[in-house]
Amino acid sequence: MRILFIVFLLASGTVKAQLPIDSVATLIKNVYRQTYSEEKAYQWLTTLCKDIGHRLSGSPQAEQAVQWSKKTMDTFGLDRVYLQPVMVTHWLRGDKEQVTMKSKETGKIELKALALGNSIGTGPDGVSGEVIEVHSIDELKELPEDQIRNKIVFFNRAMDKGLTNTFAAYGGAADQRYWGPKEAAIKGAKAVVIRSLCSATDDHPHTGSCFYADTIRNIPAVALSTKDADVLTQAVRAGQTELFIRTTCQMLPDIQSYNVIGEIKGTEYPDQYILVGGHLDSWDVGDGAHDDGAGCVQSMETLYRLKKMGYQPKHTIRCVLFMNEENGLKGGKEYARVAQEKNEYHLAAIESDAGGGSAQSFGCSAGEGVVLDDRLKYLDTYINTLLSPYDLELKPGGGGADIGPLKPNVGLMIGLRPESARYFEYHHAETDVLENVHPRELASGSAALISLVMVLDQYRIGDE
Amino acid sequence: MRILFIVFLLASGTVKAQLPIDSVATLIKNVYRQTYSEEKAYQWLTTLCKDIGHRLSGSPQAEQAVQWSKKTMDTFGLDRVYLQPVMVTHWLRGDKEQVTMKSKETGKIELKALALGNSIGTGPDGVSGEVIEVHSIDELKELPEDQIRNKIVFFNRAMDKGLTNTFAAYGGAADQRYWGPKEAAIKGAKAVVIRSLCSATDDHPHTGSCFYADTIRNIPAVALSTKDADVLTQAVRAGQTELFIRTTCQMLPDIQSYNVIGEIKGTEYPDQYILVGGHLDSWDVGDGAHDDGAGCVQSMETLYRLKKMGYQPKHTIRCVLFMNEENGLKGGKEYARVAQEKNEYHLAAIESDAGGGSAQSFGCSAGEGVVLDDRLKYLDTYINTLLSPYDLELKPGGGGADIGPLKPNVGLMIGLRPESARYFEYHHAETDVLENVHPRELASGSAALISLVMVLDQYRIGDE
Repeated sequence: MRILFIVFLLASGTVKAQLPIDSVATLIKNVYRQTYSEEKAYQWLTTLCKDIGHRLSGSPQAEQAVQWSKKTMDTFGLDRVYLQPVMVTHWLRGDKEQVTMKSKETGKIELKALALGNSIGTGPDGVSGEVIEVHSIDELKELPEDQIRNKIVFFNRAMDKGLTNTFAAYGGAADQRYWGPKEAAIKGAKAVVIRSLCSATDDHPHTGSCFYADTIRNIPAVALSTKDADVLTQAVRAGQTELFIRTTCQMLPDIQSYNVIGEIKGTEYPDQYILVGGHLDSWDVGDGAHDDGAGCVQSMETLYRLKKMGYQPKHTIRCVLFMNEENGLKGGKEYARVAQEKNEYHLAAIESDAGGGSAQSFGCSAGEGVVLDDRLKYLDTYINTLLSPYDLELKPGGGGADIGPLKPNVGLMIGLRPESARYFEYHHAETDVLENVHPRELASGSAALISLVMVLDQYRIGDE
Repeated sequence: MRILFIVFLLASGTVKAQLPIDSVATLIKNVYRQTYSEEKAYQWLTTLCKDIGHRLSGSPQAEQAVQWSKKTMDTFGLDRVYLQPVMVTHWLRGDKEQVTMKSKETGKIELKALALGNSIGTGPDGVSGEVIEVHSIDELKELPEDQIRNKIVFFNRAMDKGLTNTFAAYGGAADQRYWGPKEAAIKGAKAVVIRSLCSATDDHPHTGSCFYADTIRNIPAVALSTKDADVLTQAVRAGQTELFIRTTCQMLPDIQSYNVIGEIKGTEYPDQYILVGGHLDSWDVGDGAHDDGAGCVQSMETLYRLKKMGYQPKHTIRCVLFMNEENGLKGGKEYARVAQEKNEYHLAAIESDAGGGSAQSFGCSAGEGVVLDDRLKYLDTYINTLLSPYDLELKPGGGGADIGPLKPNVGLMIGLRPESARYFEYHHAETDVLENVHPRELASGSAALISLVMVLDQYRIGDE
């Protein structure tokens, strides 16, 4: 097909001309065909998940993932592949967590748990305390301090099943994990357990970050599997219930790591960027397949395929594999700092960090000081025409954690939105493995990203 | 919520008035909330798959499914639930198929196979013959007769991986299964083996109907798993290869069965129908979970939820569970015959027979003598406004096998189009089991159907 593409590019006349819409439609058709036929992203994901494995920031696997992804992108024939140094969070889970429930009614029962990311350990002797169950931070705040002091606070608000989009359901429950430990610590609690942020009722605890204020004494925090959260709530309802928790997590000093960056230089606007990326780090359970191995290999495939097609972008297309999204966001922040320092304007930054499910739409927000109004309609027309055959559309609102700090230097911030029914069964859990990613669903995301990059590159807002 | 809905209906003023669009939006929001929260369709599908099981036309399980679905709909408080008698195909698979490959290079190897539906058996002694491989009916037709006579023809064209939509890939390969046996018989072949119509390379053979002409001698036909089709093609390439095939299929005389029909009577146009349906029969392997247990329970849930919400439709809403789609379509034909006889006009007929995956769009065609032109735009506006929050849209082209014969009596023929990446790994195979249906993806189809029925019922083409 390469010859065909070169003909298109020559036929477009002056360098500044846009490709005719029919030609872009043909390019996109070929992108889909090749992406689905080759399953390149899935092959890379297999290596990342099975040869390297999960890769928490600071771990040897995270370092291996950096080296592997650079080495892999080195084979694409790009204009530049490099590592961007960044100091990242270095948290260790330590021993397997022990959580034992004890009440007169139930006797002793072991519960399945994972320590929350960045939480402190109980130390080798563990902590014991009576359980007090709440369903929100507000409920906790309203309780008198003497009902909380020296207790173990159990946050048990489930993700709302009635919401169609599980990301909305996650968003509606995640404050318990983010801020629950801090708020419980303020009120004198000994430790926190939360109901895992999981859309199913099953046996797998889901980890994830929690945040403490610098000014308070940190307390240990763990997540229970949703089934064991149900076991605990039943026990609490039946009578006084105690938990013994033992975790040996440790926070070490920040450690050297890297964002991995590949580029195809633009022919017309080499100093303006279209970024596509995901995060290379993952939690230290499962394979980090959906979160966010998927986004990384899809972003890599974007450059791979554009290069293989012989597509010559007007803007510099940059693939960025960010480090430390999960428990520090230090890669995203450093990338943004450097971009600001170098005054690198990003026409668009696209993040794929919502799993490897079937691509459904793009969510789009404006960068700082950007007013989209009618200019987005211009773009939307092209996206509708060119991507609706693939059931894709541009929707308001969206972006991604890693590209968030880039806001001052970006026009459009876009997040790929895959179908979300299954994602929060895997997210941050030992079930986030390669086997739960479907090659064709993963390919749908790659093809969507590549196509969107071409549309953004060709039909530049400002050219209308 | 029921009180709220009644208020809306009263507030709509005259009987003929449409509900304001905001009210319908609220109704739809509640449909989604309740459908996802209750997972009613999944509960029914569990019963259908695990208490009854697969249900080929004429089987005791098909009869159980008829009784169970009628009994279940009887509990909804509908205006009418009844059985529509129909004589259906009665084909029996017989003993487990035996297919043995033999060549000098490989020795004897057993291949995984399923007889094609409606095919004749080899008889207890089986048939043996040399294999000739072709990739299309055209290729077969071009070969001289003496190269085919007394051979076993192997159709080995794979589904095209490069197509985004697996239904298109299936459509591009299915002629081998439908017409391959007939064409091979015409040229004097002894038997036919086909590569399973499966989007993956795996160990599961996929059955499905084949058609013979009345005027030719039928020959046995089986499908090989895609992996074993690869084994066979390698052997054929390496040298002369023989197959021994033994099947004991039988076609018995047609047998009495039923379509199962439930109705909520319309308040304004009781003699005009909006049909939503799927087919109750399945192949005799797996659970018939995606194909088409999913469509049946989604259609049942449509009436269940409209009734539970207190929604009073203008048109009569009819759920039809068709019998014998897989190997005769006699339920669909009989339903259409009766509808024509009674002159029952269907404003729309909607079929869900593309699996229980996440609802992605609706495909829409015009009935006989119906010109859609601008009138579809009227409807499309409402569908876009009301259903795009759920990532749904109306696309040209579509319908369903069972509603096909109804064309002369219908305005719009609509097919629900779920995400298709996984469907053809399960379709007609032993892997089409409940465990491969996700409750939330199934719910997305139910909610989509219910919402579409409400939009069609409220914003009637002709009222614009």
